[in-house]
Amino acid sequence: MTSRHKSGADDPPAAQRRRGDTLRRAIFDATLAQLTSVGWTRLTMEGVAACAQTGKAALYRRWSSKLDLLVAALEHSLPSTGEVPDLGSLREDLLYVLERTRNAMYSPAGCALRAAMDEIAAEHGGQTVQTLIQGRVLDPGRRVFVQVLERGIARGEVRGGADAALLADVGPAMMLFQTKTNGGEIPADYPARLVDEVMLPMLRPGGAPA
Amino acid sequence: MTSRHKSGADDPPAAQRRRGDTLRRAIFDATLAQLTSVGWTRLTMEGVAACAQTGKAALYRRWSSKLDLLVAALEHSLPSTGEVPDLGSLREDLLYVLERTRNAMYSPAGCALRAAMDEIAAEHGGQTVQTLIQGRVLDPGRRVFVQVLERGIARGEVRGGADAALLADVGPAMMLFQTKTNGGEIPADYPARLVDEVMLPMLRPGGAPA
Repeated sequence: MTSRHKSGADDPPAAQRRRGDTLRRAIFDATLAQLTSVGWTRLTMEGVAACAQTGKAALYRRWSSKLDLLVAALEHSLPSTGEVPDLGSLREDLLYVLERTRNAMYSPAGCALRAAMDEIAAEHGGQTVQTLIQGRVLDPGRRVFVQVLERGIARGEVRGGADAALLADVGPAMMLFQTKTNGGEIPADYPARLVDEVMLPMLRPGGAPA
Repeated sequence: MTSRHKSGADDPPAAQRRRGDTLRRAIFDATLAQLTSVGWTRLTMEGVAACAQTGKAALYRRWSSKLDLLVAALEHSLPSTGEVPDLGSLREDLLYVLERTRNAMYSPAGCALRAAMDEIAAEHGGQTVQTLIQGRVLDPGRRVFVQVLERGIARGEVRGGADAALLADVGPAMMLFQTKTNGGEIPADYPARLVDEVMLPMLRPGGAPA
């Protein structure tokens, strides 16, 4: 018996087989594409397999449920939120952070999550995904903002005694609110408006509050 | 045949019947209580009728679907967002607005919506409810904030040229974000922290942005 005959009946011919990382990436891409197009409730392992041009067995071999698959796809695909380069001014640093946030929301993983988050949150698995978003997106985002703020304080661009943990929420909160109340879109100039109209005024040193 | 025998078989005895506004209010209260306890998907006209101690027919006579019933219950129960009294300072006016917002989120309608909004948003009826929230909560909230801002400008407490439409989103956005990322709770001191750490710094006159 050749190895070809050993594989599951629904696996594609050996010639089309991809291994390891290539196959995993194709499956993750297909998962996000399906999530965006059909939503979470109607997403199936079969649909993802078909979209990734592989067999259902290739999925079940790695993930026991569609929630496991989603978590793995998000872990792999969510943009990382590493260090912010020192761009020389508070304005440039903030703009970098907010534009990176907007780009993440428009990445394949971000679009898929925005399209299906209500459905996912309404289900039992919702907490799992929200915990993942907290750990992979929100907590690192807050750390990055605190870093930018400390740089701004050192440069004398930020008032002393600012409540960094609270202020760090303003950018992400405004972006989320924008997607929830304005048809889901964040205009390309929104990060710059946030920086100039909200963030810089809120952070600048100067007279005590009125 | 007496009028008692004319009513639906599942209506309660005449002695328990309530009419007009009293019955409507009992049904709306029951709708919100059911929404909070069992969620949107599992909410049924039967369950609401039982909770309101009336018959299913009394509901279907007024609303043809549970979505119609929900919309009517929200229209009736959402706190109104009327004028803000002039409390003499920007800080007091802002605090009044934000505490009223928090109170609305903890009202029966607010709790019901927060408990079930993900489920509702994931359904076809979601857009109907979001449009209602936009018209009944968000738009009036923005008008009120603009009013407070204009008062602050007249008092010299707010910088000129502030982008009122954008700045008006900061309070609601932060409250929504707080419920989405911190286990759904908004601490009682959160409005004051927002006013002192975010809103007043953001609005105060003074040096140009750094």
